[in-house]
Amino acid sequence: MSNPSLLILAGDGIGPEVMTQVNRVIDWIGDKRGLAFDVSEDLVGGAAYDKHGTPLHDDTMAKAMEVDAVLLGAVGGPKYDALDFSVKPERGLLRLRKEMDLYANLRPAQCFDALADFSSLKRDVVAGLDIVIVRELTSGIYFGEPRGIIHEGNERVGINTQRYTESEIDRVARSAFELARRRGNKVCSMEKANVMESGILWREVVQKVHDEDYPDVELSHMYADAGAMQLCRWPKQFDVIVTDNLFGDLLSDAAAMLTGSLGMLPSASLGAPMANGRPKALYEPVHGSAPDIAGQGKANPIACILSFAMALRYSFDQGDEAVRIEKAVEKVLADGLRTADLIGEEGVEPVSTEQMGDAILAAL
Amino acid sequence: MSNPSLLILAGDGIGPEVMTQVNRVIDWIGDKRGLAFDVSEDLVGGAAYDKHGTPLHDDTMAKAMEVDAVLLGAVGGPKYDALDFSVKPERGLLRLRKEMDLYANLRPAQCFDALADFSSLKRDVVAGLDIVIVRELTSGIYFGEPRGIIHEGNERVGINTQRYTESEIDRVARSAFELARRRGNKVCSMEKANVMESGILWREVVQKVHDEDYPDVELSHMYADAGAMQLCRWPKQFDVIVTDNLFGDLLSDAAAMLTGSLGMLPSASLGAPMANGRPKALYEPVHGSAPDIAGQGKANPIACILSFAMALRYSFDQGDEAVRIEKAVEKVLADGLRTADLIGEEGVEPVSTEQMGDAILAAL
Ligand SMILES: CC(C)[C@H](C(=O)O)[C@@H](O)C(=O)O
Ligand SMILES: CC(C)[C@H](C(=O)O)[C@@H](O)C(=O)O
Repeated sequence: MSNPSLLILAGDGIGPEVMTQVNRVIDWIGDKRGLAFDVSEDLVGGAAYDKHGTPLHDDTMAKAMEVDAVLLGAVGGPKYDALDFSVKPERGLLRLRKEMDLYANLRPAQCFDALADFSSLKRDVVAGLDIVIVRELTSGIYFGEPRGIIHEGNERVGINTQRYTESEIDRVARSAFELARRRGNKVCSMEKANVMESGILWREVVQKVHDEDYPDVELSHMYADAGAMQLCRWPKQFDVIVTDNLFGDLLSDAAAMLTGSLGMLPSASLGAPMANGRPKALYEPVHGSAPDIAGQGKANPIACILSFAMALRYSFDQGDEAVRIEKAVEKVLADGLRTADLIGEEGVEPVSTEQMGDAILAAL
Repeated sequence: MSNPSLLILAGDGIGPEVMTQVNRVIDWIGDKRGLAFDVSEDLVGGAAYDKHGTPLHDDTMAKAMEVDAVLLGAVGGPKYDALDFSVKPERGLLRLRKEMDLYANLRPAQCFDALADFSSLKRDVVAGLDIVIVRELTSGIYFGEPRGIIHEGNERVGINTQRYTESEIDRVARSAFELARRRGNKVCSMEKANVMESGILWREVVQKVHDEDYPDVELSHMYADAGAMQLCRWPKQFDVIVTDNLFGDLLSDAAAMLTGSLGMLPSASLGAPMANGRPKALYEPVHGSAPDIAGQGKANPIACILSFAMALRYSFDQGDEAVRIEKAVEKVLADGLRTADLIGEEGVEPVSTEQMGDAILAAL
């Protein structure tokens, strides 16, 4: 049997730097744990635009459809700000999500004990926090038509469309309930059913999926604005949150920041099972391309390394190996190692991206 | 000259209770400060639905168009959850906003010194915080057409439309810049221009208004997800934030919660100047109808009283009287008085809605 395949798209900004450290972990797991991958690399985002004039070349898209999992660094940067909307770095990422049909984006917001004091929130509010936001990723206002800037009378009008079908809501709700069963068995669904019809349909379908197939999971509904509040007030009340593409974008970023661990948080974007039973999957850190520190060797590689750990768990059924990597990360943090993004107090010397990689490999 | 006119719509849940205390302040200001108002009262939300079968009667709408300012309590409650979308309590509020054309919603997120420890954020992150979110209130996805739940093939589809015209963006941007000039002279505009064309137009128009008419104000742009993060991380970096209707809904609730002062925060919704020079205006607390504590005399009347203070400032040019009320509130808090929502530690006895009203009147 051939090795499982990984496509690495390091992308822009700090993407390539952090990915270098991930590559070391991949090599380690092949050498030391006998888990070899067929790794290929390609371009996405601004890097792809620079070479091909498009943020995702068709050949890269085709490769992504074939491999067992895609690992992505980050896309975007001020260099590309003036580009036309259709070729912006972000379009490359959005095309991957859409064409691979990665409808369930799992974003853990987890507070690492060693970092609990680093959050802007009080320690008791975040210590031990472990929630997952399941964000719908292939529909909603990110992709709905009509969209664009049109002329009407003597002015322009910017238009985007929120659109959700029952089946789109149904499938992401199932992902959330399945996940909850393996965790705290609680799902909170967030929308604005008080002002948006798409929210009414969302609430109704989530409730129906629950009642028919997951009556054992505790389900609640919350308006997304109240959800934003409650995340800031007492995030530990949640276990799994399921929400749409746009709300998920804001709420997961807020939740991630609360943990104080933004440079630490991975994500998995999962689609339907392929012929080999594995879900179509893309893994990426929650942090962005951080152009302000790119190329300086300062970036924190942990989120990207933990994204690879998620790949081991969700794509390759290697939960034990995932835990091994997660434990190594915890140990390094407990030992006091900090990249620049994790330094709150004075007197702590930051380590470089590579030194953090060294330490994690040593801990492994 | 006749007295300025106020229409009071107490609404649902804790609305009527807190409004009773506001009425006492209105009486006081008439008696003691010679500032008498012609006050009329009417129904909105579920209360209006119960009586008229509609969450806002046409006669009430007509009155709202005539008065100098509207003071609103809160709308909504579980009793009305099963109602058809078109007659839900929220539709009453949304109709007022739309027909009065109240495009600029000012939501201060202010941390009262006496309450800084009550926030879920660390004291140094929130102490002294004083920012204002200017939320566009009459357009965007709240009102855009087409909308609804339609049938397509053999399933239903929920649709809402985000729509912004140049002039809609232009006018709310101006409100934000004007406000910033009277404060810290800084505006941060938030959208998702990286994924939404309506966000591209938003960013462009805000920049143009700035360059043409407010070059002296410091302007920055931020993606709304990053904005949610930054609000949680270091909110003091902001002065005035301007954003669309939906982002404003989430971001202002998150910001309000950060201050620990949710039961304390007022808002003003302002439209174009009327014939008498006053803007069309509606004032309401940021907190909702809180059905869980309604009718128990526990609610905090401060947000609603401070909303009246905002009315004095923005509608009646009585900034000094507004400050007088705000100082009375601060004094009462500094004296240690707390309604139930403001109690974090044990051993503090909460005061009732009425006792809080008594104390504020005494301080006045
Ligand atoms: C880069 C951008 C297109 C993306 C999004 O808006 O989805 C990012 O913010 C994210 O959350 O993954
Ligand atoms: C009650 C509801 C319609 C309203 C909104 O979504 O605008 C509320 O959340 C608010 O922020 O004023």
